[in-house]
Amino acid sequence: MVRQLVARLLRDRAADASEDHWATMVVLVLVLVLCSGVGFVVVVEKGRVLLGCEEVVMMEEEFLTHLGANPQGIVVPPVEGVAGGGTAYGWNDGGGVHLSNSSPRGSIDPSEVLTSDLVHVWCLPSTANVGPQEIPSRHLEPINLLAARNERESVQIALRPKATWGGSGSAGVVQVQCSDLTSTSGDRLVVGQSITLRRVVSILGVPDALVPLDLPISQINLAPGETTALWVSIDVPSAQPQGQYEGEFFITAIKAEAESPSQRLGKADRHQLYLELRNCLDIMEPVEGKPLDEVVERAKSVNTSLRRVLLSPVFSEFSTDNGPVDMMDEDAISNLSVRVKLNLTVWDFILPATPSLPAVFGISDTVIEDRFGVEHGSDEWYEALDQHFKWLLHYRISPYFCRWGGNMRVLTYTCPWPADHPKSDEYFSDPRLAAYAVPYSQAVPGAAKDYLQKEIDILRTKSHWKKAYFYLWDEPLNLEQYDMVRNMASKIHTYAPDARVLTTYYCGPSDAPLGPTPFEAFVKVPKFLRPHTQIYCTSEWVLGDREDLAKEIISELQPENGEEWWTYVCLGPSDPHPNWHIGMRGTQHRAVFWRVWKEGATGFLYWGANCYEKATVPSAEISFRRGLPPGDGVLYYPGEVFSSSHQPVASVRLERILSGLQDFEYLQLYTSRYGRGEGLALLEKTGMYQGPERYTLEHTPIDVMREDLARLGCKRMLIFVVKEDYLTIAAKNYYEKLKRSG
Amino acid sequence: MVRQLVARLLRDRAADASEDHWATMVVLVLVLVLCSGVGFVVVVEKGRVLLGCEEVVMMEEEFLTHLGANPQGIVVPPVEGVAGGGTAYGWNDGGGVHLSNSSPRGSIDPSEVLTSDLVHVWCLPSTANVGPQEIPSRHLEPINLLAARNERESVQIALRPKATWGGSGSAGVVQVQCSDLTSTSGDRLVVGQSITLRRVVSILGVPDALVPLDLPISQINLAPGETTALWVSIDVPSAQPQGQYEGEFFITAIKAEAESPSQRLGKADRHQLYLELRNCLDIMEPVEGKPLDEVVERAKSVNTSLRRVLLSPVFSEFSTDNGPVDMMDEDAISNLSVRVKLNLTVWDFILPATPSLPAVFGISDTVIEDRFGVEHGSDEWYEALDQHFKWLLHYRISPYFCRWGGNMRVLTYTCPWPADHPKSDEYFSDPRLAAYAVPYSQAVPGAAKDYLQKEIDILRTKSHWKKAYFYLWDEPLNLEQYDMVRNMASKIHTYAPDARVLTTYYCGPSDAPLGPTPFEAFVKVPKFLRPHTQIYCTSEWVLGDREDLAKEIISELQPENGEEWWTYVCLGPSDPHPNWHIGMRGTQHRAVFWRVWKEGATGFLYWGANCYEKATVPSAEISFRRGLPPGDGVLYYPGEVFSSSHQPVASVRLERILSGLQDFEYLQLYTSRYGRGEGLALLEKTGMYQGPERYTLEHTPIDVMREDLARLGCKRMLIFVVKEDYLTIAAKNYYEKLKRSG
Repeated sequence: MVRQLVARLLRDRAADASEDHWATMVVLVLVLVLCSGVGFVVVVEKGRVLLGCEEVVMMEEEFLTHLGANPQGIVVPPVEGVAGGGTAYGWNDGGGVHLSNSSPRGSIDPSEVLTSDLVHVWCLPSTANVGPQEIPSRHLEPINLLAARNERESVQIALRPKATWGGSGSAGVVQVQCSDLTSTSGDRLVVGQSITLRRVVSILGVPDALVPLDLPISQINLAPGETTALWVSIDVPSAQPQGQYEGEFFITAIKAEAESPSQRLGKADRHQLYLELRNCLDIMEPVEGKPLDEVVERAKSVNTSLRRVLLSPVFSEFSTDNGPVDMMDEDAISNLSVRVKLNLTVWDFILPATPSLPAVFGISDTVIEDRFGVEHGSDEWYEALDQHFKWLLHYRISPYFCRWGGNMRVLTYTCPWPADHPKSDEYFSDPRLAAYAVPYSQAVPGAAKDYLQKEIDILRTKSHWKKAYFYLWDEPLNLEQYDMVRNMASKIHTYAPDARVLTTYYCGPSDAPLGPTPFEAFVKVPKFLRPHTQIYCTSEWVLGDREDLAKEIISELQPENGEEWWTYVCLGPSDPHPNWHIGMRGTQHRAVFWRVWKEGATGFLYWGANCYEKATVPSAEISFRRGLPPGDGVLYYPGEVFSSSHQPVASVRLERILSGLQDFEYLQLYTSRYGRGEGLALLEKTGMYQGPERYTLEHTPIDVMREDLARLGCKRMLIFVVKEDYLTIAAKNYYEKLKRSG
Repeated sequence: MVRQLVARLLRDRAADASEDHWATMVVLVLVLVLCSGVGFVVVVEKGRVLLGCEEVVMMEEEFLTHLGANPQGIVVPPVEGVAGGGTAYGWNDGGGVHLSNSSPRGSIDPSEVLTSDLVHVWCLPSTANVGPQEIPSRHLEPINLLAARNERESVQIALRPKATWGGSGSAGVVQVQCSDLTSTSGDRLVVGQSITLRRVVSILGVPDALVPLDLPISQINLAPGETTALWVSIDVPSAQPQGQYEGEFFITAIKAEAESPSQRLGKADRHQLYLELRNCLDIMEPVEGKPLDEVVERAKSVNTSLRRVLLSPVFSEFSTDNGPVDMMDEDAISNLSVRVKLNLTVWDFILPATPSLPAVFGISDTVIEDRFGVEHGSDEWYEALDQHFKWLLHYRISPYFCRWGGNMRVLTYTCPWPADHPKSDEYFSDPRLAAYAVPYSQAVPGAAKDYLQKEIDILRTKSHWKKAYFYLWDEPLNLEQYDMVRNMASKIHTYAPDARVLTTYYCGPSDAPLGPTPFEAFVKVPKFLRPHTQIYCTSEWVLGDREDLAKEIISELQPENGEEWWTYVCLGPSDPHPNWHIGMRGTQHRAVFWRVWKEGATGFLYWGANCYEKATVPSAEISFRRGLPPGDGVLYYPGEVFSSSHQPVASVRLERILSGLQDFEYLQLYTSRYGRGEGLALLEKTGMYQGPERYTLEHTPIDVMREDLARLGCKRMLIFVVKEDYLTIAAKNYYEKLKRSG
């Protein structure tokens, strides 16, 4: 039956080949995975599993009906006929808000109306850039996520008011409440620990900053005509049992506190209350030594005052019923709430604690010093750097601190403490750290003689020494600068012949061309620098869209002598190539590490994660440095800008960096079993990543790819692409040659 | 001396002619007006008079120094040199926030810091579209406005946080306080009456809706990294004495109430307080008949409780100092506030109460019925229509209600009540109403026989009958539809030969071409329709950029027989031509009526002011109709969407429509004195409006024009354009031929 279906799909696809808007209308990817002879069907739509995993016992008719029946259920009417210089008056009678349960001209009481009548709620994948103008695109359906252990998966819940029920300046307040995720066997992923909720805030008009929300309950102001996105992340601990987890979000439109004056006490009200109570006290004390009748009179007077106070509007809600007050009623989830189901499949495999790809990211110590007002070398300085280091380590990133000297000379150091300090081992032995930078000179100037030699002498005795590298100069441009690198590297190699020196570059010395063309000169840099550099770290920008040039770079290296090829992105390459600038697509952000994997680099460098413009107040507005594309060098923000919290605020780009690094682990896991060729074939076939200008713009292929990689035991796979609004179904790729596991 | 200066300016301009970014850098327009032989100088910068009017006694050196010295005082550093694949690390040491008066790592207390350290405050003209991404472009300088009597002038104050001092989700709260404007002779323009303040809210990401703020004091939440614009309007009453008025805005960063927990009582706190106080009462009563020692013990216990309550954080601010509490301190203007000076010159002339140009605008009764749930013909329905009519009348607009039948037949009526109802005279006699639509059939169906004849018989006896028109069909497209217009018009003219029938069109009948080309066919419509139409109302879209075609249209009409040419805009023309779509430039919105004036139409029609998509709840989200450009047919919004107010919310486009209609009056006033030719010359020379694709994009020429028009007594004018950042000054236009008034 399945074979017949496939044949029919392929036939339909061929008949439809003339449709030229085909490419833009791909919405559903249908994956038929035939496992171990027993097939099952998964229908994935933009990152969400619609049908779940079922054995293929579904009838063919049923199957096609499901696909043809416009799964979103959204009716897209034709654009109305519009006369040349005229107007269109027709009503879309199906649209608009209809409240079953409110007086038409009265204001809306959210405690009497379904929240779904007041708020659009829908879900979007983590690669969607969900700005205030995002239009509700689909009906609400359960969220379905797949994650390995020791992995973070994220998804977005979008909210947009259908009507205004709140006060001035806001369409209304919604309360978002989140349950733990529980499995049938009673295992649990706990809200606040494994599940976090952040609000997506626009930077330069583009959704980027992720500002933490309170858990398990948060209140969010919705603005009229604007979409608010919530970023839900689930961190699956390494020890989490595999299985199916379920949880729920409850979204409830509520009355804003500010709306009902009785629920709030302004200064004047409080002062009034204070005066009345103090007056009671003045009347009553002292009582000792007073005659009984006077005490009684005074007590009566006080009782009258107290009774009046208790009957005041401030306490009206407590005094009216006099019964037990349910303090939880603000938190109560009512049958008016919108419920968003979240299903999580936790795979049995674990992403390695130590990243397979060392991804070293710079943190400017100068920026920290300026903004947070900490003096270089002071206790607060160490504390601030420590906070940044630990925070970034959660993102499968190996941080290094940096400050720049003249001519792009850089001082880089992963640990601000010297090698003989206990913190040094703590930092460098952390399994999550894949590589660390050893400073060429003291990070905190001191009187130490032979500092470099002493540091190296200590570090090379450690087992973590293999993670060490020396990053001395950023992009040398001429002979003089290349000579500086050689001199410093010579000194290092005198102390430790096995030390790894990392040099970033995108060209050879301008005053001594190493080849007839810029690229040929660039490719010859290893020959020119050897043996003074081990890690040749080149800009992705150099390759343009010719990923094949990567082979030429690699062929110049001597891996047998420990030479490695790493890459970096910064202000280049620019759109449409993968990079992390604000305004790029979500998949473009995530594709940076797909690219690294495909091109075969063994490490990656990024120049700055906190390099916004100088400021001397922690909460000062963020501005990007002139001359750089927005977001270049800025992957997280000072928390103080967004709230009273001192925790950094991640960008969605940083989350996508993590996702890309996790994808890298999936690819590594898969190829460790089936070989690199099969991994490359899968990249190509899913359409997730084929080259710097050919990668998926939609989320679906990512989840398809991840699920494919995860289901290592699969025998055969069929991938179909289904068009929206059409019954025609067609196979995009058909392959049966997956290596058998058996 | 002035002649030397002019010569030098012209020389510099010539030397600089090679600079091709000239056009984009025009910032200052310098107007030297030499009056009655005694010169005075006005330097106008984007709508604000910088120097004011002074006699030309200023030395030439001083004058050039002022212009050359970068009047904004903002240093624009060069873009940093950026290496090909590299990064830029340089600091802009001049930038960033520096707080003189706060602990670096602590949170910011706005009561101890200058608001100017926390908030950028700057002013922009009413034609600027100030969205959240607007960058502070200049230092704060006084606002200088010029207005006639019976005129509204508006200006914008932009606020953008430099740092965060507030709570979560907000950079902080600012309090905006506004004083009355007073003249030296003691005359007054009162806040809340003549001065109003609205917040500019984005619609589809474009600043458009004007949501009223409280006066005289408002609190506004600023979002980090976003600019908030306040729209200040001054309505000068007709009876206002001319003169110089001055007032001030005070902008003060304050602590949000929600920020300090002690200033707010949540439900739990209130409940706790309630329980404690009730407990006191329970202990104390009844006291009568109790032995003294027991009463004393109870009183002591109550005193202890009360003392504890009074010492709780809720009342901390009152109990600590115990002194008199200044309840006004929240409202107090401190020396930390940013002060924005507002100077208003009120001219001695009065804009006529009755608009010189009948501008008839449609209001969809259907939209009102659906959204506000009022039944056609019910008391609430009359009330709702009455509210819309009166509100729109403030905009120099003559409203008509409309509902559409099949084939673009329209039922239009300015007054929902019949002609024999007192409301009819009230509506039609209102001096602000320049034209009114008489319905062809009953607006509210009833049993009236010969309704049309009876209505006409009543109306034609009134002096306001000259304002009446009949608008029967929107854009007839073929013979059948043209015949319908003829038939209806015949009937009307049987009852009143002098009745004016208005027909909108943009082409002749498609099935009987009136000419060899579409335009020739279009031009022949009057010949074809005569005598069944008196007001030939054509789409501006037809003209394209050839305003000369207007002459051809006019030449076909017989004004001696009462024929008129009116125009309209709707979904066309589109950018760059003047229209009211969201996303167009402010001057583009305002230019619609400059165009009408220049082309010589004697009336104007707009199809819909409230034609958003159907909804059945007053506060339902606003969506625009499919197939129409955003904002087309929507000039104001239901107030319920933005707050609990039932007052409509104007768009900035509606305000610019009013400004354009006021500009029209200025032009009429001027030409009534000097003739149309001089008015046209002035339009051309100021560069305010030269054609549908050549009008000013900047505000300055508008104020130059308005001031020129107002200063009817001026003898000679010189207009210079000065480039930002350059000392070069050049004359853009130089003319001495203004008609002498003497």
